Amino acid sequence: MDSHALRKLFEQVRRKRLSPDQAVERLRHLPFEDLGFAKIDHHRALRQGMPEVIFAQGKTPLQVADIFTRLAAHGGNVLATRATEEQFAAVAAAMDLAEYRPEYRPIARAIVLKRDRKLQGKGVIVIVSAGTSDIPVAEEAVVTAELMGNNVQHIYDVGVAGIHRLLAHRGALAKAHVIVVCAGMEGALPSVVGGLVGVPVIAVPTSVGYGAAFEGLAALLGMMNSCASNVSVVNIDNGFGAGYVASLINRR
Amino acid sequence: MDSHALRKLFEQVRRKRLSPDQAVERLRHLPFEDLGFAKIDHHRALRQGMPEVIFAQGKTPLQVADIFTRLAAHGGNVLATRATEEQFAAVAAAMDLAEYRPEYRPIARAIVLKRDRKLQGKGVIVIVSAGTSDIPVAEEAVVTAELMGNNVQHIYDVGVAGIHRLLAHRGALAKAHVIVVCAGMEGALPSVVGGLVGVPVIAVPTSVGYGAAFEGLAALLGMMNSCASNVSVVNIDNGFGAGYVASLINRR
Amino acid sequence: MDSHALRKLFEQVRRKRLSPDQAVERLRHLPFEDLGFAKIDHHRALRQGMPEVIFAQGKTPLQVADIFTRLAAHGGNVLATRATEEQFAAVAAAMDLAEYRPEYRPIARAIVLKRDRKLQGKGVIVIVSAGTSDIPVAEEAVVTAELMGNNVQHIYDVGVAGIHRLLAHRGALAKAHVIVVCAGMEGALPSVVGGLVGVPVIAVPTSVGYGAAFEGLAALLGMMNSCASNVSVVNIDNGFGAGYVASLINRR
Amino acid sequence: MDSHALRKLFEQVRRKRLSPDQAVERLRHLPFEDLGFAKIDHHRALRQGMPEVIFAQGKTPLQVADIFTRLAAHGGNVLATRATEEQFAAVAAAMDLAEYRPEYRPIARAIVLKRDRKLQGKGVIVIVSAGTSDIPVAEEAVVTAELMGNNVQHIYDVGVAGIHRLLAHRGALAKAHVIVVCAGMEGALPSVVGGLVGVPVIAVPTSVGYGAAFEGLAALLGMMNSCASNVSVVNIDNGFGAGYVASLINRR
Amino acid sequence: MDSHALRKLFEQVRRKRLSPDQAVERLRHLPFEDLGFAKIDHHRALRQGMPEVIFAQGKTPLQVADIFTRLAAHGGNVLATRATEEQFAAVAAAMDLAEYRPEYRPIARAIVLKRDRKLQGKGVIVIVSAGTSDIPVAEEAVVTAELMGNNVQHIYDVGVAGIHRLLAHRGALAKAHVIVVCAGMEGALPSVVGGLVGVPVIAVPTSVGYGAAFEGLAALLGMMNSCASNVSVVNIDNGFGAGYVASLINRR
Amino acid sequence: MDSHALRKLFEQVRRKRLSPDQAVERLRHLPFEDLGFAKIDHHRALRQGMPEVIFAQGKTPLQVADIFTRLAAHGGNVLATRATEEQFAAVAAAMDLAEYRPEYRPIARAIVLKRDRKLQGKGVIVIVSAGTSDIPVAEEAVVTAELMGNNVQHIYDVGVAGIHRLLAHRGALAKAHVIVVCAGMEGALPSVVGGLVGVPVIAVPTSVGYGAAFEGLAALLGMMNSCASNVSVVNIDNGFGAGYVASLINRR
Amino acid sequence: MDSHALRKLFEQVRRKRLSPDQAVERLRHLPFEDLGFAKIDHHRALRQGMPEVIFAQGKTPLQVADIFTRLAAHGGNVLATRATEEQFAAVAAAMDLAEYRPEYRPIARAIVLKRDRKLQGKGVIVIVSAGTSDIPVAEEAVVTAELMGNNVQHIYDVGVAGIHRLLAHRGALAKAHVIVVCAGMEGALPSVVGGLVGVPVIAVPTSVGYGAAFEGLAALLGMMNSCASNVSVVNIDNGFGAGYVASLINRR
Amino acid sequence: MDSHALRKLFEQVRRKRLSPDQAVERLRHLPFEDLGFAKIDHHRALRQGMPEVIFAQGKTPLQVADIFTRLAAHGGNVLATRATEEQFAAVAAAMDLAEYRPEYRPIARAIVLKRDRKLQGKGVIVIVSAGTSDIPVAEEAVVTAELMGNNVQHIYDVGVAGIHRLLAHRGALAKAHVIVVCAGMEGALPSVVGGLVGVPVIAVPTSVGYGAAFEGLAALLGMMNSCASNVSVVNIDNGFGAGYVASLINRR
Repeated sequence: MDSHALRKLFEQVRRKRLSPDQAVERLRHLPFEDLGFAKIDHHRALRQGMPEVIFAQGKTPLQVADIFTRLAAHGGNVLATRATEEQFAAVAAAMDLAEYRPEYRPIARAIVLKRDRKLQGKGVIVIVSAGTSDIPVAEEAVVTAELMGNNVQHIYDVGVAGIHRLLAHRGALAKAHVIVVCAGMEGALPSVVGGLVGVPVIAVPTSVGYGAAFEGLAALLGMMNSCASNVSVVNIDNGFGAGYVASLINRR
Repeated sequence: MDSHALRKLFEQVRRKRLSPDQAVERLRHLPFEDLGFAKIDHHRALRQGMPEVIFAQGKTPLQVADIFTRLAAHGGNVLATRATEEQFAAVAAAMDLAEYRPEYRPIARAIVLKRDRKLQGKGVIVIVSAGTSDIPVAEEAVVTAELMGNNVQHIYDVGVAGIHRLLAHRGALAKAHVIVVCAGMEGALPSVVGGLVGVPVIAVPTSVGYGAAFEGLAALLGMMNSCASNVSVVNIDNGFGAGYVASLINRR
Repeated sequence: MDSHALRKLFEQVRRKRLSPDQAVERLRHLPFEDLGFAKIDHHRALRQGMPEVIFAQGKTPLQVADIFTRLAAHGGNVLATRATEEQFAAVAAAMDLAEYRPEYRPIARAIVLKRDRKLQGKGVIVIVSAGTSDIPVAEEAVVTAELMGNNVQHIYDVGVAGIHRLLAHRGALAKAHVIVVCAGMEGALPSVVGGLVGVPVIAVPTSVGYGAAFEGLAALLGMMNSCASNVSVVNIDNGFGAGYVASLINRR
Repeated sequence: MDSHALRKLFEQVRRKRLSPDQAVERLRHLPFEDLGFAKIDHHRALRQGMPEVIFAQGKTPLQVADIFTRLAAHGGNVLATRATEEQFAAVAAAMDLAEYRPEYRPIARAIVLKRDRKLQGKGVIVIVSAGTSDIPVAEEAVVTAELMGNNVQHIYDVGVAGIHRLLAHRGALAKAHVIVVCAGMEGALPSVVGGLVGVPVIAVPTSVGYGAAFEGLAALLGMMNSCASNVSVVNIDNGFGAGYVASLINRR
Repeated sequence: MDSHALRKLFEQVRRKRLSPDQAVERLRHLPFEDLGFAKIDHHRALRQGMPEVIFAQGKTPLQVADIFTRLAAHGGNVLATRATEEQFAAVAAAMDLAEYRPEYRPIARAIVLKRDRKLQGKGVIVIVSAGTSDIPVAEEAVVTAELMGNNVQHIYDVGVAGIHRLLAHRGALAKAHVIVVCAGMEGALPSVVGGLVGVPVIAVPTSVGYGAAFEGLAALLGMMNSCASNVSVVNIDNGFGAGYVASLINRR
Repeated sequence: MDSHALRKLFEQVRRKRLSPDQAVERLRHLPFEDLGFAKIDHHRALRQGMPEVIFAQGKTPLQVADIFTRLAAHGGNVLATRATEEQFAAVAAAMDLAEYRPEYRPIARAIVLKRDRKLQGKGVIVIVSAGTSDIPVAEEAVVTAELMGNNVQHIYDVGVAGIHRLLAHRGALAKAHVIVVCAGMEGALPSVVGGLVGVPVIAVPTSVGYGAAFEGLAALLGMMNSCASNVSVVNIDNGFGAGYVASLINRR
Repeated sequence: MDSHALRKLFEQVRRKRLSPDQAVERLRHLPFEDLGFAKIDHHRALRQGMPEVIFAQGKTPLQVADIFTRLAAHGGNVLATRATEEQFAAVAAAMDLAEYRPEYRPIARAIVLKRDRKLQGKGVIVIVSAGTSDIPVAEEAVVTAELMGNNVQHIYDVGVAGIHRLLAHRGALAKAHVIVVCAGMEGALPSVVGGLVGVPVIAVPTSVGYGAAFEGLAALLGMMNSCASNVSVVNIDNGFGAGYVASLINRR
Repeated sequence: MDSHALRKLFEQVRRKRLSPDQAVERLRHLPFEDLGFAKIDHHRALRQGMPEVIFAQGKTPLQVADIFTRLAAHGGNVLATRATEEQFAAVAAAMDLAEYRPEYRPIARAIVLKRDRKLQGKGVIVIVSAGTSDIPVAEEAVVTAELMGNNVQHIYDVGVAGIHRLLAHRGALAKAHVIVVCAGMEGALPSVVGGLVGVPVIAVPTSVGYGAAFEGLAALLGMMNSCASNVSVVNIDNGFGAGYVASLINRR
């Protein structure tokens, strides 16, 4: 928990092997991470149960396997998002003899190594998707939130054009501590959900749609302009980010 | 109903004052509008009760008054949209002695001359607005539809972030023959309304909002991507167009 | 037509098995769809002859076949848009022994199961395309409108740069009850058609074009700004939506 | 807490003044808000200390005064955002004889009526601004969060081009329960702050900047793409929304 | 040159087999193209030497071959742009026994059938390209202009970052009757060329470039804002259009 | 016609006052314009009748008057575009005693000094406007073309939504040597005109419209994607540029 | 040059008033700026002759005067950009009795206080503008570079449509150590200049132009895509930034 | 160093084989490059050690090999950017017998022929990347700068969300003569680096990211709006351009 390098420096001053001036000088040339400032330790405390994360898209299976095993050596949970089955095969092979085995969540396109199963969140995180095509993004949020120690519940395919489908789940929404809403096309669902509840809503625009959906831009703009005051937004298709922010809120 | 010029031409051929070749030649030089094709007459029939329309924005009061009186001379209803009180004063002064007096609708920013009061529409047109700031656009649609001989009903301030406000009006929506929905910001309301009913919904994005609303672009894109199949869209703030299209549908 | 659950609740109150307070409490926990509000029934009435619809793009053949057969079990018409021949083969195999057989419409890229052949529309729907490349979108509108019980007529390849081609069809246009116009590139055709007729025109921008066509954006913007008052617009390449809206209008 | 109308209905069934069928029928015609579903009551509980809010921009002083006094009559806190001194003067005049007097916060451009002073938030909300020009937006967040019962601390003018200014405040950041970061131009500050802490960061792009800042679009896009996982974003210049979301998180 | 149908109609009136009224009526139902208005003939005169054109991209080899042979039957020149070698093979096969054989221009990606070799243009058309990557677009303009009976000269790879390369060709530029300039990236060349000459310059933005070139948008905007008064612009990569417009100008 | 400086240099070499090496050296330091290359003289020849032009917008009346009188001193025609009446007053005052007096064209917002009245153009330039709001831009083209020595004819208010209005002018269009078409909103008119004629069409998008017209962008994109091959485009509202290009074409 | 706080800490350890552990702990709570890292001192050394800068736009005259005098108290040069004459008057009044008096540069819209007149730059900085309307931006660069101790030369009104004007200055360009090029509209000039020289070129897009110039966006995109390898770009109208970067380069 | 052609011309005048008039005439027809103006020679001097460059993307292996060997024949360094291994194989084969052999740098995707190894730069160029995905772009800058004779140092994976990683390298940054910073997503790193140093920073937006990164547009806009005054920007992914500009600055 302390900074070895720093303490050693002070020891040397104490033993008068270094004058204060020399110590100041030397301090200036120490690599920053050796200073062991509180932030890092504090962070570690905060970060209990937080997964190490790999954005697998665009990496080779071997690269993913390599980073994954390296992160797994830290002892916590590990998550690789946007991962293919080929990447998972490489990770599984690399961790064949490990005590904990990674698993693949195909819809979320995630490789998950879950060792720390302690519940960190105080309430339930509800993940909502507007259509069935938004489910992969929603599942990425689900996997992320679960790996960060939360009770997660999902409500899928409750888009605004059939509002009764959403209203049927008002009970579940009312019990949520924080809600993630994934929607493509016009991205209207977060506003409706936001109006039904009094808790923070994390909106995720998805690239679902065609034509004037412009790869999620229409949904993104819609969500930025939400008339519900409790909505904030993450990047297009960023289920991971939404699950991460929701988990942090759920720990408050 | 017939084309005087055309008939005369045929008469001349019949009386052999013109050879067919000469007639063909002459036909080529006749102005098109003299041909008297069916479309024009047919149009007139269709157009009963349709107002003559002026887009007043950017015109001087005198110009508006001049065009207004000229159109009023045709005998039907006249509508000036995006009109100021100054423009109305000029129109009112110019028509001081006329049998029918124009009136000003300040919220809709419209000058209206209503002489033909025959009901043309079969059912009720319902005009919905998401927020109170969208009301001027909605009122433009109301005035247009009324002037075109329709029963019009409005439901205002029923935005999606308080969905119960909208649902309280489901009875009225269910009875509508056609619905106009005006919304700015995220423009989500037409999808919700569209999902509640089985009739055509005309969506009007409004320039209400700020920041990433981009003067109505966010709402426009949202509406183009509506997940409700019964929604079609007109230009930003185009309450007139929506009222016009709704009126045509209501005559079907 | 009634809501079984609701009536049962009232029965229990009547028989004093539940106090009103208990009933109120229980009502709060009933799933919404069990409430059997009028909208749903009313909808069903309105929806006679409306197809169940699948957006096939991005789904596996098996998924499409699975959903298709499930929807077909409801007894009405079924439509899968943006479908490939492979998807059709899977659907056809899955419905091999069914009484009604689906058929594939290759240009419209649609799988169609038509059982309800009752005419629902009052007039003729005319579907117009600017160029030959716009025909797939137009055909999607044709298939949709036919499946919804309409007389449909098409006029193809009548783009504005050869206006006489369009004018040659003025007779057909004049007889239409509602018109769908599909155009890419500059998207100008709906304005011209709109000016020729007095009925609603549904404009469909298509992604036909290159360079500054920006995948249909140029056509979309053009149509949003149509100088014809009777034009409303659906999403880029959304032939289905245009056919759907036109069908609703044709039932008015 | 209960719904009077609903209970009355059940009473009538119990007393056999209505048959269950009649009750079902009548239920269908009850206005929705009379149904008294849990959500509304639950909401009220959640909403303790939440201000009633007016978006004053574009409204006349009289309109603002009128709405303000009406909302003030509900007994809670009232907030008018984007308000001018003229609007405040009208509000102050209208509430001249009231027990609680509104005050004007000129930098935040807010009119505030604070009666409920109970602390609702669990921790400290830290509001950060990149430059001095972002302070009005940051102050809107400050005022909102204070009115919602939070301890608020601000750190201003710590933009990324002088990173040592920000780092000097690491202690304060580390103690925050939730952080709001307002930045215009390149909008980079939320990523840096997000990397320093383990709590949710609400990013507010501001319209500060010129040229390629495009009225806040550059900052908005930057924040949407933040490489820090704990960042979510609200609309350009939406200090109110950020303060509101932060307050909700601080109550978790 | 005359319209058979029209003349026949007049003949019938002359022979009194039709009354003028009947003739007017019949005229209304004649297909437009049968009317033989002057425009068409006049056009034909103007169009001497103008090729029939096919936009081959996205068509199957058989479709291209089919249209090509049909157009070739008209007797004039035929041009297929954006054509692949496969499409050419199909065309060549289909026209194996024809008197005139089509040829393939691989850089211009054009299939050309040239029978009418009469010189139509008065002066020289100079086609300029900024870089070597712009040459395919420039060659499309060359092929088009040649097929329309012009003397064409090309000057390639004279981009603005090596202005001496362009200046070395000032003699050729000064002799041109009309100039086509193809450029991608910043699209600056048309302005420089426009400033060097006193003749019309047709600018063609190309999709050459990467990153902020945005598929030709940067070049397009640059050319629209040319500070040279003699520049007009066609669509991105539209070498055909530029060659066509230049040919028309060269016939003036 | 020759370059005095250059000839003098050669004279000195001839008289052996300079060695060839010294002459080469000196040549390197000569200002470019002293080299007297053909282009400049040739240009002057080409430019007979071309006006000197001032873009008056954003300049003070005195600045415009100052530049105008300086250019007027060259002896040819002078044109100030986007000029206000105040600017004209200043110009008129400054040229009070001059032989030729400038005149103001209020609709075109142009100050014109016409001394050279020689006809330079071979045929008629027809300037077309879609709506009445496009007339100022069209008039700028008219004034420019007239000042450059052309016979100009205008056809106004013939937008595509009333195609018969345009078709009534087919005779005039057919006689044009080159056509300028000004249109805002959807910008469709150039395609229709282009299809009716066999001559070059210069399209001018105007900023007329609102909402999704985006200050002329919709019209610009529409015109860039014109399906008529004879259309090229200039900047939004650039009537001057269109008149200039048309004048050059008319001299071919 | 040293950090007092740090040294004191080491002293206390040396005197054994603090244990190393206590010192580490305390270090964690020291404000960052007290650590006295080299960067800050080093920076000061680097920054000799660099002006303190105020972005005056949007500030009141009093605010500008206040900041200006405060910065002036540091002893170096002070620059206020985007300043009005009113702001200057306030600054001048506030510094009425100071030894050095600020001056106003109206075209550059800058208030300048120059005390340190030492030449810092090694070579000449040449500032080029395409048109006369770009001169205010260019002058902002001139003022900035001069205040930072550079020899500055300007070449104005040498836009690409009259390339000979630019070429006439090739001598001056060839002698530059670094070049700033300001251009609006198509923004082509930096590419041409970049091709003529072998030194760094800083390109400044300006908001000069109209229509498709989109407030400088066209120029910005053009410059980003420059085909000259020695061009880098700053924000639209950012003459200050260009002058600043050029000054830094000139000190290398 | 001199221009043979020019001298010969002067010789002929001196020998009176040509009159001055004839010489002037002939001079006009000399190709520009034969004039041997100072710029070119001067350039050559400046350009010592500058590589000949090929943009290999989109070229066939044979084309690259052909151009590469041709450029290699000039005797200097050669660089092919955006090159594949296939293209390298072709180049290597073509230069099999050459004295200097090209090598392939796979991460930078560059083919390099380095013969001139003289150090041209005065200081160290530091190349920084925000993430590991930005390294290919950064390496392109490294290869370019090395080939142009610079000491290059790189600092990778120091994105703003972990600011301590960057701060750990402050020593290296402080010693740089010029810095290149490559970053995708929000593109915030150049501002932070710019604030830490007093030397020019060349920012390279990369296309790394997804969703609202819009292929590098978000990073580009962020960098254009950098609040650090010493930042200028090159095109998205343009590592070559950044390395080139940095090299020029490093020679100052």
